[in-house]
Amino acid sequence: MIAETPEPPYYAVIFSSTRTEGDHGYSDMADRMIELAKQQNGFLGIETARNDLGITVSYWSSLHAIKNWKENVEHSVARNKGRKDWYKNFVTRIARVEQDYRFDKE
Amino acid sequence: MIAETPEPPYYAVIFSSTRTEGDHGYSDMADRMIELAKQQNGFLGIETARNDLGITVSYWSSLHAIKNWKENVEHSVARNKGRKDWYKNFVTRIARVEQDYRFDKE
Repeated sequence: MIAETPEPPYYAVIFSSTRTEGDHGYSDMADRMIELAKQQNGFLGIETARNDLGITVSYWSSLHAIKNWKENVEHSVARNKGRKDWYKNFVTRIARVEQDYRFDKE
Repeated sequence: MIAETPEPPYYAVIFSSTRTEGDHGYSDMADRMIELAKQQNGFLGIETARNDLGITVSYWSSLHAIKNWKENVEHSVARNKGRKDWYKNFVTRIARVEQDYRFDKE
């Protein structure tokens, strides 16, 4: 659901993607990557939604934490498989969150 | 689909939300807000996906453009209706995109 992030500033990795046809082990790997991300230093939260387009936003305490996650061996293997099998197109954007506003209906 | 944004830096508004039950005019207004956003100065693109969680990311050339969009009268009316009728919870995050990477399968 909506990530419970701390006061800004913090960082967001916005991953927008379109999939190839078929699963090819994608769902299991996507679940595994979320579990693995949660174990990383500096991980703050993750949000994901998919229709034709998929958007996954993960939140991190620093660019250093994002770099460490990018260099994680299991994550690197998954990224290579993503390029080969799972994704037609994707864009990864690294952004510094400067402000946020929350609304919760009572 | 995936937004065709220029070279960074630029800005992202990450809007993550959970809905109330029923439509209550939401779908029409969501379509209208996307059309209206596209007409604003400094608008660069928009991506949206929804399962249980909805994520809409709009991209903008500057914080000034985001402020103007926030102050748009029709958008303000829709936001008020969003708090009243459409959303259980939402978080709006304003972020500066510092790097991006694109992949397109041939």
